[in-house]
Amino acid sequence: MTTSWLESAQDSPFGLHNLPYGVFSTADQPGRRRIGVAVGDFVLDAGAAARAVGEPSVLLDADTLNPLLAAGRPTWTAVRAALTAWLGDSSYRAAVSPHLHPVGEVTLHLPFEVADYVDFYASEHHATNLGKIFRPGTEPLTPNWKHLPIGYHGRAGTIVVSGTDVVRPNGQRKAPSEPLPSYGPSRRLDIEAEVAFVVGAGSELGKPVALADFREHVFGVCLLNDWSARDIQAWEYVPLGPFLGKSFASSLSPWVVPLDALEHARVSPPPREFELLPYLDDRDGEPWGLDLTLTVRLNGHVISRPPFASMYWTAAQQLAHLTANGASLRPGDLYASGTISGPEVESRGALIELTWNGENPVKLPDGTSRSYLEDGDTVTITATAPGPDGALISFGEVTGRIVP
Amino acid sequence: MTTSWLESAQDSPFGLHNLPYGVFSTADQPGRRRIGVAVGDFVLDAGAAARAVGEPSVLLDADTLNPLLAAGRPTWTAVRAALTAWLGDSSYRAAVSPHLHPVGEVTLHLPFEVADYVDFYASEHHATNLGKIFRPGTEPLTPNWKHLPIGYHGRAGTIVVSGTDVVRPNGQRKAPSEPLPSYGPSRRLDIEAEVAFVVGAGSELGKPVALADFREHVFGVCLLNDWSARDIQAWEYVPLGPFLGKSFASSLSPWVVPLDALEHARVSPPPREFELLPYLDDRDGEPWGLDLTLTVRLNGHVISRPPFASMYWTAAQQLAHLTANGASLRPGDLYASGTISGPEVESRGALIELTWNGENPVKLPDGTSRSYLEDGDTVTITATAPGPDGALISFGEVTGRIVP
Repeated sequence: MTTSWLESAQDSPFGLHNLPYGVFSTADQPGRRRIGVAVGDFVLDAGAAARAVGEPSVLLDADTLNPLLAAGRPTWTAVRAALTAWLGDSSYRAAVSPHLHPVGEVTLHLPFEVADYVDFYASEHHATNLGKIFRPGTEPLTPNWKHLPIGYHGRAGTIVVSGTDVVRPNGQRKAPSEPLPSYGPSRRLDIEAEVAFVVGAGSELGKPVALADFREHVFGVCLLNDWSARDIQAWEYVPLGPFLGKSFASSLSPWVVPLDALEHARVSPPPREFELLPYLDDRDGEPWGLDLTLTVRLNGHVISRPPFASMYWTAAQQLAHLTANGASLRPGDLYASGTISGPEVESRGALIELTWNGENPVKLPDGTSRSYLEDGDTVTITATAPGPDGALISFGEVTGRIVP
Repeated sequence: MTTSWLESAQDSPFGLHNLPYGVFSTADQPGRRRIGVAVGDFVLDAGAAARAVGEPSVLLDADTLNPLLAAGRPTWTAVRAALTAWLGDSSYRAAVSPHLHPVGEVTLHLPFEVADYVDFYASEHHATNLGKIFRPGTEPLTPNWKHLPIGYHGRAGTIVVSGTDVVRPNGQRKAPSEPLPSYGPSRRLDIEAEVAFVVGAGSELGKPVALADFREHVFGVCLLNDWSARDIQAWEYVPLGPFLGKSFASSLSPWVVPLDALEHARVSPPPREFELLPYLDDRDGEPWGLDLTLTVRLNGHVISRPPFASMYWTAAQQLAHLTANGASLRPGDLYASGTISGPEVESRGALIELTWNGENPVKLPDGTSRSYLEDGDTVTITATAPGPDGALISFGEVTGRIVP
């Protein structure tokens, strides 16, 4: 593992083994968005650094990551190697260091323009819990659940960067006990702690992407909070699935951790109950389970630690399924895991599960408790993964505050 | 109604009362996409015409309609008035006529870059028929159906222009009688005849769009064939809705008919069974039912004439619902009506209804019959609407051929 000449990058979860990409601006030029790379306590202006070392790149001199995403795996590998050299080899120090901005002094933006957004439903514990809550008296997992990764399309245009306030959505809802629906602010506003995968290289319409080609198409990984209005969702979602209960906002973390940084985080997914169809069968390949641990804080208080390694379906299986019908990919497609919930109460990634639909409110240190989110509440999700030589990889955070 | 100096535009459903927008290229410059307006038997190169008459416009000198879409209602009105003058006032003839291309000699492209795509489910007859087929023994319409326009997000990246071949999708499916799912080409490939609405001006996150503001946001109207693999859909869609059964392709007509052209087509929607919540209640305004008649042809043979005027929910109600939770709009958002089916068998807009899930195959003049689509089949949907003074408005066509 290469060491950086930048002191704050040494022993940092934002060391050279991580180097996530984002888009930032500075206070003196607020309208000028630039590609940045997080390293130690700094953000490297990647385009300026490339020019300074004499390796100018149109891919790094952009206001979104989309051109870099579209460039494909060989380019991603080359760019990562160049960044590692610039920050690891002290001969570059004089040229590169003027382009480091303290992370606290920059504004972070949505790192890329989202093309299509898909949300999966890959946690067995989450799907079981929601089945019990939404469809009591029936088998909680639908018969298809262990044969294919269930997913649906969400709204790409309302994905917002971490830190954006979330307006409590209005909507139509009807409790079973009410004779007619009403319209007003959601009374059951919830979170969903998820991991999201960023598609780089596109694919051709009509050509499925095989499990083994996952790495050629997926550029990196973010955190996502898929805010959910449970009352709106419960009334609308039969028969065509979630719509307005989700589409008001989803918050995305500003840093895209390169897939290359996660080799040490790979683990086997849980044993599968049924033999999978060949296009989903990853027993003979290198499965893409990932040992990320998320932490969910409500107003600073830890309420859950969802374990991503427990997910039944991997991101590679999700991509193979998403394209199994020939659907094409575009640079900037984003697909999320679905809520991550482990087997224990304190590892559940949504309030509806943590509080069992409000029956057991979460107690906060200030003496209050929550069934669902209140106006003014701030939810922050962070995550780490194992890196090389015992190092940690940080995913930064995705945070958002509820406003009326 | 203004008459054109262009002979083929007189008494044409592509007369000055229509003037739909598209994007075309010519054989001598296949890589150069330009905005075109259909008039009579010709396509007017709108940017070149604007320059020729001394009114150059960056909005018309573009390779997609997106900049024009984003410009908003006052600009749309001004551009339409200018086009009407150029093609109606013979003093413009010498300048404009060199920029008319015979429609048979141009290639038509996807007219705009699709941002988010939403599909509704607004036909009571279609929803009732599908409820009976997919959920026999239960109430065919779900309890929410007459209180809100049910919808879901689809895949924007696989919307293709009319004329694009559609590859029969592979997918996972399991009939109730089969013990395990299998993967392979869909055996129940279907059509859905729909009308689609093109959003022009965007909206702010957190601010719903009222019924009365429909005209400020919606630019125009297209035809859409939402190809559907019923076997894939039936196995996957519980609990999160349609996904791979739809996402392999949706075909869009190349001409966007301006909303301004449809004033004479406005009709009242059917009587509503329940009083609607205020954000959906259009009794006191000017409802946006539209009297379009679609014709569906399979290999040239008419199999259905779906009546759009029978839709329970209007496009204005759909837009108000889509944004009721504060979801923002972007230029290029597209939302479709869902399959249009009238009360009679011969007005149903999908084969699953026409053949009642294959029980009563459609007979074709060549002596063959169809339960679902076969490889090589071509499906073409056309539509007309009433215009001023007894004239007709044509929507052109959306066509596609199934290939293995």
